[in-house]
Parts: sequence; structure tokens; C-alpha cells
Amino acid sequence: MDNNTNKNIKNNNHSEEKVRIFDTTLRDGEQTPGVSVNPEKKIKIAYRLDELGVDAIEAGFPIVSNGERESIKTIVKQGFKANIYGLARTVKTDIDAALACDLQYIHTFIATSEIHMKYKLNMNKEQVLERAIWAVEYAKKHGLEVEFSAEDATRSDRDFLIKVFKSVQEAGANRIDIPDTVGYATPEYISSLVKEVSENLSIPISMHCHDDFGQAVANSLAGINSGANCAHVTINGIGERAGNASLEEFVMSLQCLYNRKTNIKTQLLYEISKFVSNTMGIIVQPNKAIIGENAFGHESGIHTHGIINNPLTYEPISPELVGRKRWLQAGKHAGAHGIKAMLNEFGVNPTDEELQKIVEQQKIVADKGKSITTAELLSISGQVMGNTKFEEKFTLHDFHIVTGLNIIPTAVIQLSTQGKEYIASEIGVGPVDSALKAIQKIAVEVAKIKVREYRLESITGGSDALAEVSVKVEDNFGNVVSARKSGADVVVASVQAMMDAINKVMLRKVLES
Amino acid sequence: MDNNTNKNIKNNNHSEEKVRIFDTTLRDGEQTPGVSVNPEKKIKIAYRLDELGVDAIEAGFPIVSNGERESIKTIVKQGFKANIYGLARTVKTDIDAALACDLQYIHTFIATSEIHMKYKLNMNKEQVLERAIWAVEYAKKHGLEVEFSAEDATRSDRDFLIKVFKSVQEAGANRIDIPDTVGYATPEYISSLVKEVSENLSIPISMHCHDDFGQAVANSLAGINSGANCAHVTINGIGERAGNASLEEFVMSLQCLYNRKTNIKTQLLYEISKFVSNTMGIIVQPNKAIIGENAFGHESGIHTHGIINNPLTYEPISPELVGRKRWLQAGKHAGAHGIKAMLNEFGVNPTDEELQKIVEQQKIVADKGKSITTAELLSISGQVMGNTKFEEKFTLHDFHIVTGLNIIPTAVIQLSTQGKEYIASEIGVGPVDSALKAIQKIAVEVAKIKVREYRLESITGGSDALAEVSVKVEDNFGNVVSARKSGADVVVASVQAMMDAINKVMLRKVLES
Repeated sequence: MDNNTNKNIKNNNHSEEKVRIFDTTLRDGEQTPGVSVNPEKKIKIAYRLDELGVDAIEAGFPIVSNGERESIKTIVKQGFKANIYGLARTVKTDIDAALACDLQYIHTFIATSEIHMKYKLNMNKEQVLERAIWAVEYAKKHGLEVEFSAEDATRSDRDFLIKVFKSVQEAGANRIDIPDTVGYATPEYISSLVKEVSENLSIPISMHCHDDFGQAVANSLAGINSGANCAHVTINGIGERAGNASLEEFVMSLQCLYNRKTNIKTQLLYEISKFVSNTMGIIVQPNKAIIGENAFGHESGIHTHGIINNPLTYEPISPELVGRKRWLQAGKHAGAHGIKAMLNEFGVNPTDEELQKIVEQQKIVADKGKSITTAELLSISGQVMGNTKFEEKFTLHDFHIVTGLNIIPTAVIQLSTQGKEYIASEIGVGPVDSALKAIQKIAVEVAKIKVREYRLESITGGSDALAEVSVKVEDNFGNVVSARKSGADVVVASVQAMMDAINKVMLRKVLES
Repeated sequence: MDNNTNKNIKNNNHSEEKVRIFDTTLRDGEQTPGVSVNPEKKIKIAYRLDELGVDAIEAGFPIVSNGERESIKTIVKQGFKANIYGLARTVKTDIDAALACDLQYIHTFIATSEIHMKYKLNMNKEQVLERAIWAVEYAKKHGLEVEFSAEDATRSDRDFLIKVFKSVQEAGANRIDIPDTVGYATPEYISSLVKEVSENLSIPISMHCHDDFGQAVANSLAGINSGANCAHVTINGIGERAGNASLEEFVMSLQCLYNRKTNIKTQLLYEISKFVSNTMGIIVQPNKAIIGENAFGHESGIHTHGIINNPLTYEPISPELVGRKRWLQAGKHAGAHGIKAMLNEFGVNPTDEELQKIVEQQKIVADKGKSITTAELLSISGQVMGNTKFEEKFTLHDFHIVTGLNIIPTAVIQLSTQGKEYIASEIGVGPVDSALKAIQKIAVEVAKIKVREYRLESITGGSDALAEVSVKVEDNFGNVVSARKSGADVVVASVQAMMDAINKVMLRKVLES
């Protein structure tokens, strides 16, 4: 990669040291409004975080509930490599609750900004300072290792903030943390703040940045480049409101842009991101850096052309580095190079003239606002190249479904394949289930093809928002293919995806025979 | 807000000038792999962008397809306040295609990095320079106003890059743009690059940053603070791979963190974000800054306590500033203050002892990993307080729906409320849409209640996996409530969630009356 990009990176004393990753997916991440993770799931996530290589896991906030304490206790017992932390306000009940969970590490906090002291704590500076010192001393006396956070640090009077930090250091705190509680800081402000704090302290400094203006990762990096050696992060950037700095963006930026190291096994990032998203029920948008579905997907002709010649033209890093694969997509913006590469994967080699026609024809379809599936692209190629091998093998002629209250969902499907007409009817637990079962009835009979997985992406918007469906089918040789379809009618989209998937697996049989 | 936060902001010559917003939702945004927007939808989006107040709309890439050219032509004709741009490589066919769309503004580009010149263009520096000059001269000769981009500028040799920029300025370019094509730059590098470029040029400079490491907004801001006066952005940050700098984060950061102005009507941000997401079928994750569902949602007891006393404790900006409302959520992390505020909203005033019991009981439910709906919270309160007012107001008696190929999805609903029977039938874009519309028909008539949002959580597994649905409804007093339901039949679950939501909002009316 070009050296220019990084030539202005600040040198600092810590540059050889690994950056410490303090994961708070199970605490700040779980404070995502409306999200609640039961103890069993919390423990599963903790296992994956430890496997990923985070240095610290904030397992929860012991005081909040019985279930929370149970989860934390169990996590502590697992003997993870990561340090397990619990959150506590600077009050006895909270620290005692942490002790009751057998924690060895505690993250205790009190707010230091005017607005928080006045409107939330109803305390003055002296009282806050006293409470902070008391809590650190109390926790230390009980054998805990303490990370102290000055909540809303970035909106606090700087002299007072530094006074609090120096006092808790004297009281025995092992680390201090600088939270940008409402995500209001800029990288410039963080730099100047962290420099000043680090000049006044000898213990290590963490950053805890929120993403209310989309600056959480940039602010965390600014902190690291100015003297902090740790950041509080979450998988997928979940957390209160707009969330926290996202682990995957922070770690990959450190490694690729700033040449710093962490203990994270980056190859696990995608898999664990998916796991957390599914387990906690918080979706990741397709255009999310590193772990979004599209982060390594390419449609534009110019981009796919570059990618085919040298992936570094349009990819900053190799997708494998974060456990992913690149994918190309046909469509309106696709060009000859991309389409050719996609066809070659199926052993289809059009002439230049044929390729041109294929590109044109798939653009006509895409202009209608449709996304082009591989089956459609192959079918277009078949028509252009006069190759009957690629003709659709199953053609849907008709279907309808009924469901309702006290009605057993029922579907009737009419389709043809290899010159014969088939009609099947099936009941199911819902309309999609009945429709897919009816199609499968015919597909099993004719070609031994079965549904292996059905997936519906979440929809937000009106009841007329687009549903995105993918269906994975398998033939009796173990070939698995999937097809994706979106549409406003979830049943129709599901049936179309199923038909596409069947045709794709049939096509593969034909090409392989 | 505390002045400390912004005290380190760089002063620059442009600080009084408004920052120009160049929106590329319809070009780079539409290059999201798998997304294709038909002409009709493109025009609708262009209308919303112009209404939002963007200074420039990049309407598309004329060369890619007939549909694209049609859309652009139509957009040009609307007489928008925004300048309408089309993208063109530095080749005659592309510029001619732009001219054929009656464009007055063109965005033309050629790559200047070693890797792009060698692996994609197969050209040397001299050829690239010559082509760039030729294109600008050709476009100017045909009366176009030209913004010139040096693709992959951040990985280009800096001396060559500046030579190209100076040459196109001499050739008549009106603006130059610095693309961070693979999102590989850091704010530090952008600062130094933009400073050097601006010292060498007299025409205005734009930034075009990609989000592969989550740095697109921070990089765009660094550019503005170093001498650029415009950024290319997209609604919701959509675009190639991980997308572009998101308009809403960039604009709100400029305004709130850097005290700079734009022509954007920020109150429209949320509404237009939703519109683009629904129209293009690209979801926004809940933890997205400014426009994500959770950006102004609060569950944690500490946070809701603060918010109730003074919203600025846990909100960097007022939600109304971006067209939104704050919401509180019951759950495991909720405390007495938050729960009390939520109950008070419904006119429910528990004693301290009752409140304590309610908080405990809802935590028991939340510990099982469930999120607590308002109806559930009210139902728990009813039990604790022995209050029978919380009874169902609408009762579902029957419904059925049909859909299929060439069948317009149709629903029939039978329900009773206030002792009367109602039957309604509606068609929709899908079975859920038709069912919800039929219920809404009655709900509007009887109680002026409308659906505000519909959400379906993703399902993985077989076609018989459980679907989880939530429906948000609103009455004519602006009260918004949501209800959630899961079941194997997505249509039935949607209808039940809708019924629950209606009953909840009715409850509020009853309690308020």
C-alpha cells in the first residue's frame, strides 16, 4: 500500500505497545434500548469475545437485576483469558453487588460535568471528589482492581477533571477512563484533553466514546494517538442511543491505518459480528464498515474491472483478513469485466460480442429497479448464446395462498418443468411455509431438491416496506445454492427466491453433467 | 453547552462561509451492490433532496444505461434549486452522454494513483494528465460547469496529484474534488493533503470520502477544517461497499461541533432518511448516529433519570432539531425514575411502594431476555395496583387474506369495539400490508389511529421459524405506542401486533380522559 497515506501519523511513546481492547458489548451494548439478553445468551457471547482475543470483558452492571448478577457470576467462573469487569456507581450497594459476583475487576464511575452534577447527582464538586476517592479506596480494600471513569469527562471543567483523576490515582485506581458520554467531542478536543490528562498521571488511560455524531471511532483513535492505551468498544458499535465505538472499525483502523497492534484475531470479526447481531437481535446495516453485508461487494463496472485486475484498486484490505469473501453483483452499473468474471465462475465463456449483448440485456432488467440474480444472469446468457442448457428448468405458472384467523395457511402452486405441468397444494404454519412446502413437494419428486434454509431480513418502515428473502436449497448430491429476492409481498418474494434457488441448483447439475 | 468542547477548533479563512453539500445518494449511493432504482423512484428522491436543501445533486452516471439517462433528463427538467450533476469518465462517450441529458454541471474523473493507473487504466502519468486536461476542456467548450475528481487521490503521489489539479484548473475546471476512494485515509493525512492542495489552487475544493474504516465523516470534517468547502455525501451513508460519508452525521457535526453552517433543513433529516431507506430498500441500523431508531431512545435507569431532569445530561442535541422525538423504554436496566415517568405519561401514579414492585416485576420479565412493551408495563402496573381499567378495547373476531401470482393481495377483517361490529376489506402490496390497511380503515374511522411504523425482525432457519413483528401506531394527539408479537405466521403475528398497539393507544386515551 502506498506509504503516503500514513506518512503523517504521529509518533508516540506507546507505539510499540499493544492497544488494550476493553469490550463492553455485554454492558453498554446491552443497554441498547429494548434489548435484554438472558443469562444463557450472555455467557455464549462472553465465550466468543474471549475467543476473539479482547483483553477485558465488561460482563454487566451487577446492581441492575438478579439475572444480571447470575450471568456475571457464571462468566467469572469460566476462567477466561480476558479480565472480567463489572460496572458500579461509586456507591456501596453497587460495589457490594460486584463483590457478590466474585469479580476481581471493577469499573466504577461518577459524573464530573456541571450539568450531570447539578441535574442528575445533585452534588457539588467536593462531594463528587470525596465520593470518587471513597469508592476507589473501598474497592481496593476489598481486593478489586479498579478502572475509574469520570462520566461526561469531555464536558467537564478540565482542571476539576484532572484533580479527580489525580486523586483517584492516589487512592489506588489502576486505570482511569475518559468517557465522551454524549458523543459530543471532536478528535481535536480529545487529543488536547488526553495529552493534558496523560501529562498529569502515571496510570494507563482508556477512552470510552459514544457515536452520536458518528465520531466514536475517530475520537477513540485520537485518544490512542495522544497517550491513551485502551478503548472501550462494542461489537457492531451497539450501545446506548447511537452506540459506542465499534470494535471492528477501531481495531482494523489501528492495525491498517496507524500500524498499531492488538490481541484481536481479526479473522473472527465477521463471524462474531454476525453471532452478536443474531443473538441480541440488533441488525447491522449493509453499508457498515468491515462487517456490513456490502463492505466487500462490488457492482459498478469500473470497480469490478479494477478488482479483477488487482483487488487493492478498490479494496483497502483483503476481505479474508476479517474472515470474509468478496462478491460481485450484476446490475445497472455492472460492466463487461464483472459480468464476464461472474459467468466464468459457472464455466460460461461468451464471445466479446455475446458478452456485450448480455451486459446490455441485464441493464434493461436492472433499469426497472430490479436486482439481477445469478440465475437470471445465466438465463439471459443462455438466450443470447443460444444455449438451451441455461434455460429456466422450473417455470412458475401460478400460485395463491390463503391464511387468516382460524384458517390453516394453505398454498396452491402450479409450475412446469421439462415440458410437464405440476400442481401441488400444501398447508403450513404460515403462508410462506405452505408455499415453500408446495414447491418443494414438486422439486423433491422431479429433482430431489429440498429447502435447507430460509432467511428473511428485517424490515423497518411501513407495512409496504421491501422484504428481502433468501432461500438455500440442496440437491441429492449435496450441492447447496442460495438465491435472494426482495419485494413488497413477502410471500411472493419467498416463492420467487425459492424458484431461483431451484433453477440455480438445476443449472449446476446441467453444467456439471 | 460547555465551551470546553470546542475550544480547540481550528480557525480557518472559510469559517464564515456555508459549507456546500454535494449529495451523491443517486449516484454513489445507487452504486450500492444489488440496488437499482427505477426512474420514477429516482425522481421522487431528487425532490426530497432538493427540499432538504442540498446544494448539488449528483443525479447519476449517464453512460451506464438508458433508464439512467431518462432519470437524469427528467431531474434536470424539474428546475430544482440544487445544481444537477452527472458523472463521466474523462472520455468522449461519457461526456457526450452527459450532454445528451441536458446537464449543465458535470463531475468528471480519472484515477491518479499508481495502482489504478497500472492495473485499471493501463496508462502512464503523462497519458492520465493529458486525458484529464482534454476532458475538462471538452466539457467547458460545451458549456458545462466542471468538478474534476482525481480518483484514489489519497493513494496518489502527491506531487503528481497537485500537478494534475493545477493543470485542470488552468484548463478551466470550476472545482476540484479529492476522493478517498477506498476509505484508507486518516484525518491527519487528509488535513495535510488538503492544506497542500489548497495552497496550490484558487478554485474551491471538495472532499469525497468512503467509509471502509468508519472514518468517512471524520475525514470529510478534517478536509473542511483544512481548506475544503464542500463534501460529497449520501443519505444514510449508503454507497459502494461500506458507503460514503453520511449527510446527516456530516451536517450535524459541522453545525453542532464545529459551529459551521449549511443550507440543510435539519428538521427534515429523519423523515428523508426513512424515505430513502424505504425507497431504495437499504436498511438503517438502530444504532446509527442521528437517524437510527435508538439515537434518541433511553432505557438505562441512570440515563432516564438524567434525561427527565435535564435532557442535555444524556442527549448531545435536542431530537426535534433533526425532526425526531425522544422515547423511554422499560427493561432490565430501567430504574424507578424512568418507569415512573413512563407510567405518569399514561396518567398512572403508583405509590413509592407500588412503583418498587412494578420495577421489580418488569425486571423479572426482562431477565428472561424479553423486551418490555408499554402494554406489558401497564398490565404489570394494573396487577400491582389492582386497577381494571387496562382492558382490551378492540377485539379481533375474524380475518383472512389471499395473495399469489397475479392476485392483488387482499384482506378481510372483522372486529368489534365499543359494542359495535366492523368489517373492512383492503388491498395492499402484500398480505401484511393489506391486513394492516384493513384494520387501519376501522381504527381511523373509530378512533383516528394510524400505523406509523412496521418492523419485522430477521428470521433464519426453516420457513417455519418464528417471525417477530412490531407495529407502531399513532393517535390524533400524537401519542405513539408500539406492540410486538411473534409467531410462525407472519401475517397473523402482524395482525396481532397491530391489534395490541391499537389497544395500547386506546388505553392511553381512556386513562387521559
